[in-house]
Amino acid sequence: MRIISADSGAALLNERFEATSIVAAVAVLVEPPYRLAKTCISEPIFSTVANSHELIVHELELCQALLKETRADVVHLDMSFGGLLLEELSPIQLSNISSRARGYVLKILPKLRKIAADVKRVYGVEVLAIGKDSVPVRIAELTAAASAVLYAAEKAVDEKRMVRLGMPSKCYARKVENGVMVHSLTPAEHDIAGFAADREAVLEKITFSELLNPVARGFRALEFTPNSARLL
Amino acid sequence: MRIISADSGAALLNERFEATSIVAAVAVLVEPPYRLAKTCISEPIFSTVANSHELIVHELELCQALLKETRADVVHLDMSFGGLLLEELSPIQLSNISSRARGYVLKILPKLRKIAADVKRVYGVEVLAIGKDSVPVRIAELTAAASAVLYAAEKAVDEKRMVRLGMPSKCYARKVENGVMVHSLTPAEHDIAGFAADREAVLEKITFSELLNPVARGFRALEFTPNSARLL
Amino acid sequence: MRIISADSGAALLNERFEATSIVAAVAVLVEPPYRLAKTCISEPIFSTVANSHELIVHELELCQALLKETRADVVHLDMSFGGLLLEELSPIQLSNISSRARGYVLKILPKLRKIAADVKRVYGVEVLAIGKDSVPVRIAELTAAASAVLYAAEKAVDEKRMVRLGMPSKCYARKVENGVMVHSLTPAEHDIAGFAADREAVLEKITFSELLNPVARGFRALEFTPNSARLL
Repeated sequence: MRIISADSGAALLNERFEATSIVAAVAVLVEPPYRLAKTCISEPIFSTVANSHELIVHELELCQALLKETRADVVHLDMSFGGLLLEELSPIQLSNISSRARGYVLKILPKLRKIAADVKRVYGVEVLAIGKDSVPVRIAELTAAASAVLYAAEKAVDEKRMVRLGMPSKCYARKVENGVMVHSLTPAEHDIAGFAADREAVLEKITFSELLNPVARGFRALEFTPNSARLL
Repeated sequence: MRIISADSGAALLNERFEATSIVAAVAVLVEPPYRLAKTCISEPIFSTVANSHELIVHELELCQALLKETRADVVHLDMSFGGLLLEELSPIQLSNISSRARGYVLKILPKLRKIAADVKRVYGVEVLAIGKDSVPVRIAELTAAASAVLYAAEKAVDEKRMVRLGMPSKCYARKVENGVMVHSLTPAEHDIAGFAADREAVLEKITFSELLNPVARGFRALEFTPNSARLL
Repeated sequence: MRIISADSGAALLNERFEATSIVAAVAVLVEPPYRLAKTCISEPIFSTVANSHELIVHELELCQALLKETRADVVHLDMSFGGLLLEELSPIQLSNISSRARGYVLKILPKLRKIAADVKRVYGVEVLAIGKDSVPVRIAELTAAASAVLYAAEKAVDEKRMVRLGMPSKCYARKVENGVMVHSLTPAEHDIAGFAADREAVLEKITFSELLNPVARGFRALEFTPNSARLL
């Protein structure tokens, strides 16, 4: 199966290690053996955390954009409804989630269903609300985190100050020859990762160190310091 | 403690990575330090997934068969009721599980209690409904998966076609000199594994590759291709 | 942030691998990158498991004692109430925990709030009921386990008999040059550990072997045998 998926991820953290804005959104194409994205679209979003429940609409738009470029068999969306088809998702199926979450979902459901219907009509592909069960969704999350590393590094260089980035759950970033890899630390996911190419060599302009988020077990953070600032 | 346990495991997967039949059942004897089976009985079952809730009766029969061959202090069954004695398990204790699961358990409980009473009378050994808390149950699951690798390989050879096997949660298979090892990838279980001896050298007749189950995070799959088919 | 935290941990196990008494209590000071205690206070407690819910009061007293020696920004207590300030914790906030747990908490809450008020007044530091979300609480747990290894070894030497110690969830002990390290095996915590210095060289007087707790997946145990006993 060729699967397209999307996610938004990695967050700027304040001095109390609380997330303030979501840094990157990506759509990925994943093929067997389902370990790394084959192709991806990525963009910096720096979207306030308060609106993060609306990001899912943009994620589906990114999937649609990727479908323009490449063929796929199915789309996996980061909404955890047991793999239901998005077009079958109705208010009734939402009865067993919290009323707050239901409010969010109901607000965006019409937009999501409209895009899903377009995707079905134009490309003949179904959109599944599979979320946490999906390996491609996890690969999208790690790929978003890899892109976010570059965007956060760029921000540190541009603003000449330290930037702190909170990574997604159970993963870590590693600088590689031509970019950054974010590897999963979840059990049985040791060979799953996300990659972002550092075309502007922004990682040469900063130093980053890793630490644990002290108030969120399982989450690691990176602190980016521009090299120019270090010399001052 | 010498502990006897049993489990059924690994499943054939269709092209959508859904389980269609359970491949193997085993009973194991486990001793300190509780890392690998000391002895085991194993059999191919290829039982339809729809009936998988009835497999527990057969698992207890396999424990009984193993008790004929070797002494043990206790039997651990793969039913998660906090380590209750099977003979004390009554409909009242089932009040806090789902009505569907309760229906299944009530259907098989009389048979289970009868075998447990026999086991107690003949061997003086208690049967515990301990399930997910038990390390021997996990070792039985991994041992069943190791046997299933051989049975699935055999099936691929016999039927001259690719066979896809879904492994149990958080583990991976590795070919070793005289058989196959299935190692746990669960945290703090890095030294727990299951083994099956490849007496017929069936692994010489196939090639297998590992991939991730894209619709079930934490689950890995194996694809067996008969070597003869590859040459065609 | 400089964070002070405390925990009690590791338990003596009987022949059925059930915990009988909690061995050690510690308070730790943790600084970025939040991987190991910078300073700690540790004591053997050998407290019966039945009273373990009262240990939290003593843990907070240990934090207070550590604050006399060193400065910190905040105290993390091993009570899981989402990071609420202890002084804001009221019976109303306890409405969504089990009535048994609520009973325990209500019994100790007055003492906890009194100490927390003292800590605030004297050191200007808040006490958070953050529990399982806190990395410093985990480091305290691993540090308590490292101390418990030494106390249990001492007990085996003094009483000239085998002592079995149950370790906290998902960790393992390793003898190092001048003491013992307890490393986390939780995903994404591979670089978190606790340390205890073996000043009396008690580890030279015993042999210890590791095994899995067969009735509690994820928990490992150590068996300490005095070397003198082995020569007999």
